[in-house]
Amino acid sequence: MPFAPLQNDTFLRACRRQATPWTPVWLMRQAGRYLPEYVATRAKAGSFMGLATNVDYATEVTLQPLDRFAQLDASILFSDILTVPDAMGLGLSFEAGEGPRFARPVRNEAEVAALQVPDMDKLRYVFDAVTSIRRALNGRVPLIGFAGSPWTLACYMVEGAGSSDYRRVKTMLYSRPDLMHRILAVNADAVAAYLNAQIDAGAQAVMVFDSWGGVLSDDAFRHFSLAYTARVLAQLRPHGADGQDVPRIVFTKGGGLWLDAMRTLDCQVLGVDWTVNLARARQAVAEGDADTAKALQGNIDPNVLFAPPARIEAEVARVLGDFGAPHTDVHASGPTHIFNLGHGISQFTPPEHVAALLNAVRSQSKALRGISL
Amino acid sequence: MPFAPLQNDTFLRACRRQATPWTPVWLMRQAGRYLPEYVATRAKAGSFMGLATNVDYATEVTLQPLDRFAQLDASILFSDILTVPDAMGLGLSFEAGEGPRFARPVRNEAEVAALQVPDMDKLRYVFDAVTSIRRALNGRVPLIGFAGSPWTLACYMVEGAGSSDYRRVKTMLYSRPDLMHRILAVNADAVAAYLNAQIDAGAQAVMVFDSWGGVLSDDAFRHFSLAYTARVLAQLRPHGADGQDVPRIVFTKGGGLWLDAMRTLDCQVLGVDWTVNLARARQAVAEGDADTAKALQGNIDPNVLFAPPARIEAEVARVLGDFGAPHTDVHASGPTHIFNLGHGISQFTPPEHVAALLNAVRSQSKALRGISL
Repeated sequence: MPFAPLQNDTFLRACRRQATPWTPVWLMRQAGRYLPEYVATRAKAGSFMGLATNVDYATEVTLQPLDRFAQLDASILFSDILTVPDAMGLGLSFEAGEGPRFARPVRNEAEVAALQVPDMDKLRYVFDAVTSIRRALNGRVPLIGFAGSPWTLACYMVEGAGSSDYRRVKTMLYSRPDLMHRILAVNADAVAAYLNAQIDAGAQAVMVFDSWGGVLSDDAFRHFSLAYTARVLAQLRPHGADGQDVPRIVFTKGGGLWLDAMRTLDCQVLGVDWTVNLARARQAVAEGDADTAKALQGNIDPNVLFAPPARIEAEVARVLGDFGAPHTDVHASGPTHIFNLGHGISQFTPPEHVAALLNAVRSQSKALRGISL
Repeated sequence: MPFAPLQNDTFLRACRRQATPWTPVWLMRQAGRYLPEYVATRAKAGSFMGLATNVDYATEVTLQPLDRFAQLDASILFSDILTVPDAMGLGLSFEAGEGPRFARPVRNEAEVAALQVPDMDKLRYVFDAVTSIRRALNGRVPLIGFAGSPWTLACYMVEGAGSSDYRRVKTMLYSRPDLMHRILAVNADAVAAYLNAQIDAGAQAVMVFDSWGGVLSDDAFRHFSLAYTARVLAQLRPHGADGQDVPRIVFTKGGGLWLDAMRTLDCQVLGVDWTVNLARARQAVAEGDADTAKALQGNIDPNVLFAPPARIEAEVARVLGDFGAPHTDVHASGPTHIFNLGHGISQFTPPEHVAALLNAVRSQSKALRGISL
């Protein structure tokens, strides 16, 4: 049975640098703890992994923000970047208030040598969720699949948990670059297989979260993060289950200094955080040679959502204004902007402030274009 | 009694963009827990603040790294950026393993209104330490004084402690910018008075640590961090106790995207972290119009110090190479580099690796110049 036709293609059009009647918007971690309905479903599931591994629950929470906020232009698979190293046998758990933890981190030569691309059957629950969500969406908006970048996964795999200084993973990087390259190669091939299976299952775009690329030095970023993101992208299938092209988004938190280098990536969209000026980013990667130009995604500070609605609207105006006049020629490609936060939404965010932000993006970005196309 | 004449002026010369026979080097937090002799002195003092408020202990620990490492070209006052808000009455304590904490954070209108520039007599212990250290140095190397930036102090004052998301301080910034501007104005005037008193007491250079500037959005950085750093600089005395000019260093962690804006600051040196490519930074701020050009300070990843000496030497070569050929004309000003870490040294660093780094900087940077000047 084919998937239902897409009713709102603004997100995918913007990914392709095609004109849209408004600036499409979605929010990183839009299905999450700030929504009481999410908290209720998670309580039923018992744990985060109980939620992520149950196809019905994952479908339910993915759709919750869409049911609440009519202006969301994309959905994103509810899952976690650490499913891949978990499938490698590292033993993922989420301790209350502690964040993720691996029972068997990868720290010595033997542990690195034992790493392998996991059997994708162990991640079947993710691909089943993708298909289930795509069906449940019934064409409302496109579904984005995702994975962590090889470097970001390596951070967690070596540290065994989150870190404030990345001492263990950087000690390996600087002391035994051979071991680090081996981890990253395995991760890249695993992430590529994982994203391809999501594409086959129905994902209409895929995003690589390089959440920790920004902790690297300028030189190390190129060799230990960017090179392996490129290795992922080189293996991705260009077309999805329905024959459509599947745009690729790469988001490096703290990567604003390296946009020039990221322009060389074989992807359609670059995500940027709030430290980046969108006018400068547009100049660096969204204009010029159409073969390498990217759509831009981002970049409001999630903490803006703690301000009153009038201030939220003013900050939305600033972000839209920084990107500048949107491209409106329906017959050509040109600079496009996908509105998003610069990082995941905080669990403490008032949902009504999210509504204010989404309303502001839709109405202001329509007004910027003068009339609808 | 005048201070002893300076025997090693390479650091001050580099601050002034004058040629030096080698690239001067010092390390942020060089007097610290990675040194067993520091741990011993701290044990005697009983607590961090016991150490910082005792002139003899502060002098002792400031000189420890100089006694151990002959190649250090500068010393920095042993103290903490939070002494200033402590003197404002916020009640600073350091809980074991927890970092700093304020008993009375600044979160509402009344608390903001009550803030005042503290009586500098409450910080007399700092100025006494400056004079004591300067005398103890006896001209070996110059002494750097320092303070936190107005924004960085505000982060701690509003959050009440360190933070992973800066939710409280950014909520105030976005919701009540009037309150945030009031805090920052008080902080700027307090920091200026504090640094001037350090200059009067014998500091030969001063550094403003904008440790948390990099968490702000592009727009917010300009209005809430940079503008108040500029307000500090505008009030600083240009000359020290001995009539010499006192160079000013501004270090914004994560500020690499904003070097163009920072070029406008009335300071001589900009510090950069390891995400910055020094060749690009040199182009942006160290070349061209001598009235605005800056010396550059930084920027090796402190985690490099966990690698074996041969790898440390290779990374030193890369950082020196990124900056490029040093300026060697003794009759003119030009681009100069002060070697440092991109952030404070880790408490887990092996001291012998610090020796390897310092040796490598001295010998390699001499070799880069061909011969000594």
